Amino acid sequence: MEEQKKRTTIVLFSGDYDKAMAAYIIANGAAAYDHEVTIFHTFWGLNALRKEEMVPVKKGFLEKMFGRMMPQGADRMGLSKMNFAGMGPKMIKHVIKKHHAMTLPQLIDMAKEQNINLVACTMTMDLLGLQEKELLSDIQYAGVAAYLADAEIGNVNLFI
Amino acid sequence: MEEQKKRTTIVLFSGDYDKAMAAYIIANGAAAYDHEVTIFHTFWGLNALRKEEMVPVKKGFLEKMFGRMMPQGADRMGLSKMNFAGMGPKMIKHVIKKHHAMTLPQLIDMAKEQNINLVACTMTMDLLGLQEKELLSDIQYAGVAAYLADAEIGNVNLFI
Amino acid sequence: MEEQKKRTTIVLFSGDYDKAMAAYIIANGAAAYDHEVTIFHTFWGLNALRKEEMVPVKKGFLEKMFGRMMPQGADRMGLSKMNFAGMGPKMIKHVIKKHHAMTLPQLIDMAKEQNINLVACTMTMDLLGLQEKELLSDIQYAGVAAYLADAEIGNVNLFI
Repeated sequence: MEEQKKRTTIVLFSGDYDKAMAAYIIANGAAAYDHEVTIFHTFWGLNALRKEEMVPVKKGFLEKMFGRMMPQGADRMGLSKMNFAGMGPKMIKHVIKKHHAMTLPQLIDMAKEQNINLVACTMTMDLLGLQEKELLSDIQYAGVAAYLADAEIGNVNLFI
Repeated sequence: MEEQKKRTTIVLFSGDYDKAMAAYIIANGAAAYDHEVTIFHTFWGLNALRKEEMVPVKKGFLEKMFGRMMPQGADRMGLSKMNFAGMGPKMIKHVIKKHHAMTLPQLIDMAKEQNINLVACTMTMDLLGLQEKELLSDIQYAGVAAYLADAEIGNVNLFI
Repeated sequence: MEEQKKRTTIVLFSGDYDKAMAAYIIANGAAAYDHEVTIFHTFWGLNALRKEEMVPVKKGFLEKMFGRMMPQGADRMGLSKMNFAGMGPKMIKHVIKKHHAMTLPQLIDMAKEQNINLVACTMTMDLLGLQEKELLSDIQYAGVAAYLADAEIGNVNLFI
């Protein structure tokens, strides 16, 4: 009988660069140890999946405002601590480079290569007015039911 | 032999409207999928359980200050991101209404209807000077021991 | 046959006094209920493990800046909410004393007495330029692989 694969399921709620890094480091680690891994992006965590370039889409006024105020893609996210109007992220990226660690966009690319399931929460996409063509390709779209189906049989469940 | 019910246990530490929404959406989803669900409110998460109206209680000076500075009830909580002195919550509530989603007070009512265990952490109530008559009716009072008893046999454990 | 010990594994990412308190209260509770407990300190959570006194170490410029800007030890950490430039932590410590609860440094001492595994994440130590001699004695050093090995067989997994 085949042994069941271990499973790691992370809710990425946060839109902070450092928290998203932590999520993707744990996710990539778990995938390397042969876990089935899912990152379920909701609320501000959706910004990690935004394309860097501006995508022209028709939106209501509030949705447009959210779209403008939120960071456009992983590389533009701020820090949860010591952000200092963008100085903090620059410092972090500098030490990442110096220590040959991986930036958040590199961690996301690695997650895709390791077949980690990157899921965008459709309900909060609606709320924040984000549309599929504004997000990275090769991601999945689902709601809380799919999240729970994954999480309830999981070994490592985290909310970040 | 009866199958054991699945179990979701969430610590709601945060006093942010959006994080509390995420907690209650997951909780309500889990209850709909027949999980036994508990939300353990601690620290700033206790504010989600405060009554909206002022309740006259005798308190020390610091407890009074905490009471005044903290949001009085779910509807008055701020956002973890883009709060903009209260503008953010108004925007969120507007898009919630527009998309026929549920506000936080509605999600809390639904949680009660689904018999989700809403627990207030007695130790942090003491610290923040919150008294039982200031909190919603039909909630439970417990400490970390009760939380752990639930969590250690749970399927989905989250700290939000 | 001996029953397997239950296991609680907490990632402490946050550098906030109140969040670290929550982490250590749950950890100490779990240890009291005979769990094998690990707190894996990463990013800003490492500051809870810093020695209070200045330790002279050779560092690069950015690492020195991080070192200066981050709180030096548990007692100097701020609050996640209502910090008010340090007023909030004073208020919290005051009510902790009044209610005969434990401060964060006391909770950390208790964790050591209960043989909770206090682990510092070596990868983020590198990034933030923290060195072993700047951190408390009797702690362990490990990376994400060790964390996952613990977490995947755990009962209670939290990210704080």
